[in-house]
Amino acid sequence: MTNFFSTLDERARRTGSLLCVGLDPHPADLPESTPAAALEFCLKLMSATADAALAFKPNAAFFEAWGAPGWAALAELIASAPPGVPVILDAKRGDIASTAEAYARSVFETLGADAVTLNPYLGRDSIEPFLANPEHGAFLLCKTSNPGAGDLQDVQLATGGRLYEHVARLAQEWNLLGNVGLVVGATHPESLRRVRAAAPDLWILAPGVGAQGGDLAAAQQ
Amino acid sequence: MTNFFSTLDERARRTGSLLCVGLDPHPADLPESTPAAALEFCLKLMSATADAALAFKPNAAFFEAWGAPGWAALAELIASAPPGVPVILDAKRGDIASTAEAYARSVFETLGADAVTLNPYLGRDSIEPFLANPEHGAFLLCKTSNPGAGDLQDVQLATGGRLYEHVARLAQEWNLLGNVGLVVGATHPESLRRVRAAAPDLWILAPGVGAQGGDLAAAQQ
Repeated sequence: MTNFFSTLDERARRTGSLLCVGLDPHPADLPESTPAAALEFCLKLMSATADAALAFKPNAAFFEAWGAPGWAALAELIASAPPGVPVILDAKRGDIASTAEAYARSVFETLGADAVTLNPYLGRDSIEPFLANPEHGAFLLCKTSNPGAGDLQDVQLATGGRLYEHVARLAQEWNLLGNVGLVVGATHPESLRRVRAAAPDLWILAPGVGAQGGDLAAAQQ
Repeated sequence: MTNFFSTLDERARRTGSLLCVGLDPHPADLPESTPAAALEFCLKLMSATADAALAFKPNAAFFEAWGAPGWAALAELIASAPPGVPVILDAKRGDIASTAEAYARSVFETLGADAVTLNPYLGRDSIEPFLANPEHGAFLLCKTSNPGAGDLQDVQLATGGRLYEHVARLAQEWNLLGNVGLVVGATHPESLRRVRAAAPDLWILAPGVGAQGGDLAAAQQ
């Protein structure tokens, strides 16, 4: 059984790429607001970046907004990923264990994604169902790239440090099978340094380079 | 335009009920693991509890696990709710603003639910797209009913109190149109008291009575 991050690491060495290509079909970017147009938009992006991409990251929300036909388009998109390029479903799910099991079936079995983004607010038992198989990876939201990120993530803890650093330490602790990663926005270079210190073993997904103004050079340090 | 919580309040007075009926079609409870069986299971529950229910709360995960056909069954279930009984979609979504807008379209337009559960970890701009129309309600996860709830929610803050109390205060502050509520597990009577003190104006959705061992009497105090 191959670990998700071993696969990612091997592909990074082979391609020389650390680029995760987001597939976010915003309705405003589409010729018409339909699941078919979203699928076509993403397939073109996939095809244009197949050699340069370390992984693809489709965003569930833009498909979910169309209901069942959107969900069918998302499944088709994931099934169309070039062989050997991992797919990380950006879904940010998080729920109590029995419900998390259903979400894990959705992501890994029904959709066939290789990894998923998760929200850690419900704690360990909400994450574990996604970690059972080391071939599947889970990136936990730690410090996100959006303006409101600080409302919870930056609160100072009585024991020192901020909440997102506590999350980084928990993720490091929960990483028993080596398939946990973290999401830290490229918009926060200082947070990236702190997270690397708190969780030195974990891969970091750093969104926000591009439209959100994240610093690529700082993110790669 | 009628405020979501005014509608809920009026129905509570008329029916004398504060019961939110969860619609969670666990595969183990179904005669066969299909979207049709899940829909039938939930429709029977709906029909049996229509007079006693203040609201219905279908859980998106159990439908999502079947992909597009599951999503179609969820839409049919919500469309089948008896007139006048609000539907709270238990989805626990949370994402950056432009993505949250897509999730809000999914919940309120495509599915036609009246309210939704949300995860507050990404902060204010991840919640606002759900609050634009006061006819729609949003319940923010505050202190959840599961074993791992304490991993983040119970951390002590440097300014005093725990993270879930900070979330309760934020929710109270973000409640500009009167359509924000909170989720506090009935498994934590002491937390319920603290949240009521921190956010005295907000409705509280208190899951966990039943299988999870929550205390109904304490939750109602």
